[in-house]
Amino acid sequence: MTIQASIIGGSGYVGGELLRLLSYHPQMKISKVYSKNYAGKYVHSVHPNLRSILDKTFTNENIKDIVETSDITFFALPHGQSSLIIPHLPYDNSKIVDIGADFRLKRTEDYERWYHFTHPAPSLLEKSVYGLPEINKEQISKSCLVAVPGCIAACAILSLLPLAINGLIDKVVVDAKVGSSGSGSKPSSATHFSERYNVVRIYKPAGHRHTAEIIQVLSALSGKNINVGISVHAVNMVRGLETTSHVMTERTVDIKDLWRMYRQYYAGKPFVRIIRDIRGKNKYPDPKFTFGSNYADVGFEVDTDSGRILAIGALDNLVKGAAGNAVQCANIMLGLREEEGLLSPPIYPA
Amino acid sequence: MTIQASIIGGSGYVGGELLRLLSYHPQMKISKVYSKNYAGKYVHSVHPNLRSILDKTFTNENIKDIVETSDITFFALPHGQSSLIIPHLPYDNSKIVDIGADFRLKRTEDYERWYHFTHPAPSLLEKSVYGLPEINKEQISKSCLVAVPGCIAACAILSLLPLAINGLIDKVVVDAKVGSSGSGSKPSSATHFSERYNVVRIYKPAGHRHTAEIIQVLSALSGKNINVGISVHAVNMVRGLETTSHVMTERTVDIKDLWRMYRQYYAGKPFVRIIRDIRGKNKYPDPKFTFGSNYADVGFEVDTDSGRILAIGALDNLVKGAAGNAVQCANIMLGLREEEGLLSPPIYPA
Amino acid sequence: MTIQASIIGGSGYVGGELLRLLSYHPQMKISKVYSKNYAGKYVHSVHPNLRSILDKTFTNENIKDIVETSDITFFALPHGQSSLIIPHLPYDNSKIVDIGADFRLKRTEDYERWYHFTHPAPSLLEKSVYGLPEINKEQISKSCLVAVPGCIAACAILSLLPLAINGLIDKVVVDAKVGSSGSGSKPSSATHFSERYNVVRIYKPAGHRHTAEIIQVLSALSGKNINVGISVHAVNMVRGLETTSHVMTERTVDIKDLWRMYRQYYAGKPFVRIIRDIRGKNKYPDPKFTFGSNYADVGFEVDTDSGRILAIGALDNLVKGAAGNAVQCANIMLGLREEEGLLSPPIYPA
Amino acid sequence: MTIQASIIGGSGYVGGELLRLLSYHPQMKISKVYSKNYAGKYVHSVHPNLRSILDKTFTNENIKDIVETSDITFFALPHGQSSLIIPHLPYDNSKIVDIGADFRLKRTEDYERWYHFTHPAPSLLEKSVYGLPEINKEQISKSCLVAVPGCIAACAILSLLPLAINGLIDKVVVDAKVGSSGSGSKPSSATHFSERYNVVRIYKPAGHRHTAEIIQVLSALSGKNINVGISVHAVNMVRGLETTSHVMTERTVDIKDLWRMYRQYYAGKPFVRIIRDIRGKNKYPDPKFTFGSNYADVGFEVDTDSGRILAIGALDNLVKGAAGNAVQCANIMLGLREEEGLLSPPIYPA
Repeated sequence: MTIQASIIGGSGYVGGELLRLLSYHPQMKISKVYSKNYAGKYVHSVHPNLRSILDKTFTNENIKDIVETSDITFFALPHGQSSLIIPHLPYDNSKIVDIGADFRLKRTEDYERWYHFTHPAPSLLEKSVYGLPEINKEQISKSCLVAVPGCIAACAILSLLPLAINGLIDKVVVDAKVGSSGSGSKPSSATHFSERYNVVRIYKPAGHRHTAEIIQVLSALSGKNINVGISVHAVNMVRGLETTSHVMTERTVDIKDLWRMYRQYYAGKPFVRIIRDIRGKNKYPDPKFTFGSNYADVGFEVDTDSGRILAIGALDNLVKGAAGNAVQCANIMLGLREEEGLLSPPIYPA
Repeated sequence: MTIQASIIGGSGYVGGELLRLLSYHPQMKISKVYSKNYAGKYVHSVHPNLRSILDKTFTNENIKDIVETSDITFFALPHGQSSLIIPHLPYDNSKIVDIGADFRLKRTEDYERWYHFTHPAPSLLEKSVYGLPEINKEQISKSCLVAVPGCIAACAILSLLPLAINGLIDKVVVDAKVGSSGSGSKPSSATHFSERYNVVRIYKPAGHRHTAEIIQVLSALSGKNINVGISVHAVNMVRGLETTSHVMTERTVDIKDLWRMYRQYYAGKPFVRIIRDIRGKNKYPDPKFTFGSNYADVGFEVDTDSGRILAIGALDNLVKGAAGNAVQCANIMLGLREEEGLLSPPIYPA
Repeated sequence: MTIQASIIGGSGYVGGELLRLLSYHPQMKISKVYSKNYAGKYVHSVHPNLRSILDKTFTNENIKDIVETSDITFFALPHGQSSLIIPHLPYDNSKIVDIGADFRLKRTEDYERWYHFTHPAPSLLEKSVYGLPEINKEQISKSCLVAVPGCIAACAILSLLPLAINGLIDKVVVDAKVGSSGSGSKPSSATHFSERYNVVRIYKPAGHRHTAEIIQVLSALSGKNINVGISVHAVNMVRGLETTSHVMTERTVDIKDLWRMYRQYYAGKPFVRIIRDIRGKNKYPDPKFTFGSNYADVGFEVDTDSGRILAIGALDNLVKGAAGNAVQCANIMLGLREEEGLLSPPIYPA
Repeated sequence: MTIQASIIGGSGYVGGELLRLLSYHPQMKISKVYSKNYAGKYVHSVHPNLRSILDKTFTNENIKDIVETSDITFFALPHGQSSLIIPHLPYDNSKIVDIGADFRLKRTEDYERWYHFTHPAPSLLEKSVYGLPEINKEQISKSCLVAVPGCIAACAILSLLPLAINGLIDKVVVDAKVGSSGSGSKPSSATHFSERYNVVRIYKPAGHRHTAEIIQVLSALSGKNINVGISVHAVNMVRGLETTSHVMTERTVDIKDLWRMYRQYYAGKPFVRIIRDIRGKNKYPDPKFTFGSNYADVGFEVDTDSGRILAIGALDNLVKGAAGNAVQCANIMLGLREEEGLLSPPIYPA
């Protein structure tokens, strides 16, 4: 049986990445690719990598019809749009994976605070499930509406999870470095090549919206309110995301204990790799080694002198940070093997 | 039935790329990975992208034994090494794909001229088949020793083929631009990051060894001696190769005729895409849109003013320029579908 | 005595480069910086490198007044604009350096052919002087209107000059590789970082406008009509330009003769360096080693096999390819030493 | 009067940068350039940017003689070497600027702890002066041995200084991002282009040696022991350094107060620019806008939610982070204007 998969918002980089992944998914078939702006145009005119691979045009037919005739529908729309659409769909009888921010947070006040946005469908916030299978695979498998995490949140949470669960985090500073693809496909003066090349640009030193997700998830997991500060830097690459999370702690923690916590937590989780080598090419997580893949690499270090545990995360922001994680969630919702269609290794060197 | 595939020379970038491709090939299984220098070490210590994907160590056991117990063996050794080994193997009863230069040329004098090298096994040059399925798929299917083209040769030949066959080439200048991965994984002062970044370095203005292959193939296809000059430039990227071939001609050629020639030649060839758009993101071949894939993009233009036909080629030097093309040949030799394990789309944006 | 220098069109990258160079020119003082769009804004808001260095705002006052009160005025406007303005200025009593294309060509029909543009002031084409001091320093010193060459033309001409003068060129193919700054500061989908990174994009395989300049200059120097074809590639860097010019010739030429021709021609020319080393870091011209400076590096090679002489050129497209060359011309027009304010070495490594 | 300046250790990137800066210093003349390995070779064979600019060869003559015949001598040797040489020189009658680490720390136990190194000349540690003119210009002017700060230390200290002096720092985490030139000119597998491209590689999560300097300086300035943790990341560029320093504080601090502190401290300091804009191209310090120059950009932000003050610093690691700062110190020691030879603006775009 072939699963019909559709995409609402197929012209952006996340939409393109979904198409790339689904085009060789062994059990899903791409049904409809919705785009208001590009309706009628060839998909490969926007995503030239897919030329001769995906012979489809964008459609702007009724979204409700698309959802009703698809087994799974991915939403990859700008923030604030899916929450205007999804409440009017037969979501209870469908399977929807939303890659935007609209259903990630549980409390409407958090949308007001972090997004300056009055949520139009608060009741759906209870129904939706946060789509990080490394935390809540079971819930995802039963859900009809899954909200895929933000890329920085996914990276920070995955690297910090074992520490949170073991009660080691009270206050953490997440210092993130991201490639340009995270800011989308629309040109602007900030993303003009001559302006963006060679930067280390701290574009969001405080108040980044993903903070809300990290607080929500880590606090829930550790059973206490965790203080989280994020600072995000644009660096000179297209793909990839790294988070160095500085956990402030007076406690003395042993590297062996950390190994145990991480190993224990991530046993059997197919897409998380623990990276901590004394020598060699890859001592700590580095997005270079996750390029184009659904792997999230996590690692840790202890700095006794300054009273820090470091949790380091690296992933491909468009794959495990967005489209790949979405497909992983979809696999789970559809009763497939979690890894289906997602096992191609990272591209190296890249 | 699972096919046992082994690699002789598994620690370089081409070896790593073979491992990446074979690790998710639906019908091949990686058997042995030979490396003299890294024997006993984990494969992922050299190719960190494969961590948790390929749980193998390098071996230095007898190469003859490896070949005899494998259904297909890939050689990815530095120039001059495979021709010392293969003649002593039971090559007639095996299937060998050599990614080095040792069996590409047909005439020993060409090895002397271009490689300053006395070929140790001239008789094998008759047996070996040039491994470009877009030319000689039939021959490859019957061969036990296939020599995969050099990356620049593959790119130039694929883009020039339809012109050669139609007798349009007498003299051509190939201006190539290549990423750093083409020069291998050994550090040197020329590849030190601070020295290699931001270069447009013409490192081989004349006399590049791949010239010999291009002359051999294009002359055979067009039935006349073709004059070929190559100039190769290192540019600021890791993966990717572009060739702009300037075909000098007094003849007036029509774009429509060129379309016809390219379409006709490449009909049914799964890995060659013809790129020539008036507008959009991808008007002519650009390695950006072949990243990580086995596609070779080809295109053309006419410059009446200066008396040139331009043939433009782009591919990923490690895939269609080496390991991917080798797997494609192996598929054919083994009676599999040519595309098996090679259809994952290019990564974009990258 | 301080020379008052003004800039018409100060907000683009060439305008910014003029400001950078003039800000530490020992004898010129920046008087007015005209910009229609940014009038009233701080110069450093557009050129952040100049913060705390140049305490000026853009002006939109009358251009005629600016020219009349300045000792030298640089025009850095988009093509087609300066030829609408300069005819109405008292150009005979002023000194004007135009970095646009409007006064480079001598024949109005060339504007029609290459620029699809009816020149509004043909009589000024006779008065204006092509601003390449390595050819016509004397003429520049007597001129009141100098037209600075296009960057690709400057690079190709400087590398080909000694060959042209010695009658060695009949037909030449110029294969150019350029950084992103050459396409200006306005964002577009083609220059969006995620789209422009890692490209080798042949954006102008034939018919590039700079062809007209190269034909005009080389034909004049060699006393015969020279056939010129240009193909231009965008590569992955911001600054820098390389041209590999393939001169088709049946003649046998000796490297020693070429050394003599280049040495002879460039003796006493302060900004041209001849690069041709057998070993070391810099065997042929590479824009890496001209970064941020007014140097143009030229070199050559002979390919007897394919019947080519190669002339290789490299420069910083914003300096010797635009603003630096403009200042060099201005120095000459003003009776200063040609090198004044231009001798800071290239930045390396960059 | 021309000042004779010599360099001990002229073949590395810092040595090359000294040569670049000194080659157009209006009052210094390059006398001797010492290199053990390259003696007899042309300087431009190692630093190709200086071809035709600096017509000198490296020397290996007696260092004592060089120092005695020079007005100022710069040492740019690997850590641990200058402290074996300088004690045997007539340092009291000379002026020496050491760009290595050997004389930066005041306490021998700090060398043992952070460098695992028994200092061979403890008495000289009292005589040497830490070479950051923004702190101790007066002391530098009277010193005969100045120790230039490490690049990360310089960047972090300059951005944190006003906070330290105002007692706002107790605990700070410095998250640094550096270009490849900081790791020198010797090739290694870690700096091989294909390995170093596209990385966000945390190569020193804890225990970086520059920590010692930052603790020493900030603790002295603030009159209390400051807790400092550093994590250093290699990012995809050659030049440039950014530090985001997360100051943990419960205190409520006002942006206006921070403005006042930074303005007050840096008034009259020519090379520090305060960057904090609400809009525009350059809202916070970014090494992109300091490229090739001696400027250090500093900025700040407050994150009330997480209890942080952020101090952001950016500079060119080879200029203000090494050679430029060394020349600035030399100017002061020699009684010249601090800015002499250092005012060329940053290169932009780069």
